Amino acid sequence: MFIAMNRFKVKKGMEDEFEGVWRGRETRLSDVPGVVAFHLLRGAECDDHRLFASHTVWETRQAFVDWTRSEAFRAAHRDAGGRRNMYLDGPHFEGFDVVQHLEFA
Amino acid sequence: MFIAMNRFKVKKGMEDEFEGVWRGRETRLSDVPGVVAFHLLRGAECDDHRLFASHTVWETRQAFVDWTRSEAFRAAHRDAGGRRNMYLDGPHFEGFDVVQHLEFA
Repeated sequence: MFIAMNRFKVKKGMEDEFEGVWRGRETRLSDVPGVVAFHLLRGAECDDHRLFASHTVWETRQAFVDWTRSEAFRAAHRDAGGRRNMYLDGPHFEGFDVVQHLEFA
Repeated sequence: MFIAMNRFKVKKGMEDEFEGVWRGRETRLSDVPGVVAFHLLRGAECDDHRLFASHTVWETRQAFVDWTRSEAFRAAHRDAGGRRNMYLDGPHFEGFDVVQHLEFA
């Protein structure tokens, strides 16, 4: 299992608009092999921004890598440039291999 | 849903030992109300450390907060001081509210 996160420092006052873009978009992940789940995460509020992160769970790191090389990936990111006014910094990518996994009832 | 992460900058050469501590511990989470899953994540390798993160999924932020005030929490963290030689920095806490959640087949 592999978790891909992109961190965004969203400007104060732009949080609702930023969330709206994610909620309103047509996801292109549903047909992608190896994708398990997507979450948009709202983190801590700081002086001049609030941290957000996209958080996608993959069956394997390779499934993620294959997706980044696909036409579906290019299509999903084609409009990202128009949203840059909403954040101070980012997206900053972090990829994580899951080395221990416990599920609770 | 709420995700609690603690980030650790683990010293080069200490990665296996750090993972071993997590794998070998007796988890005290299984009886905690509202806990969904635990993952230990291995992130990017940098010049002098490798990023790791604990990653715990909770049904609600309140369930997490209640746990931090419990005896189970104190017991789980009682031995943490002895592991500080393994990391340069951290743990650095980040809590995230899940504002969008999509599951794929």
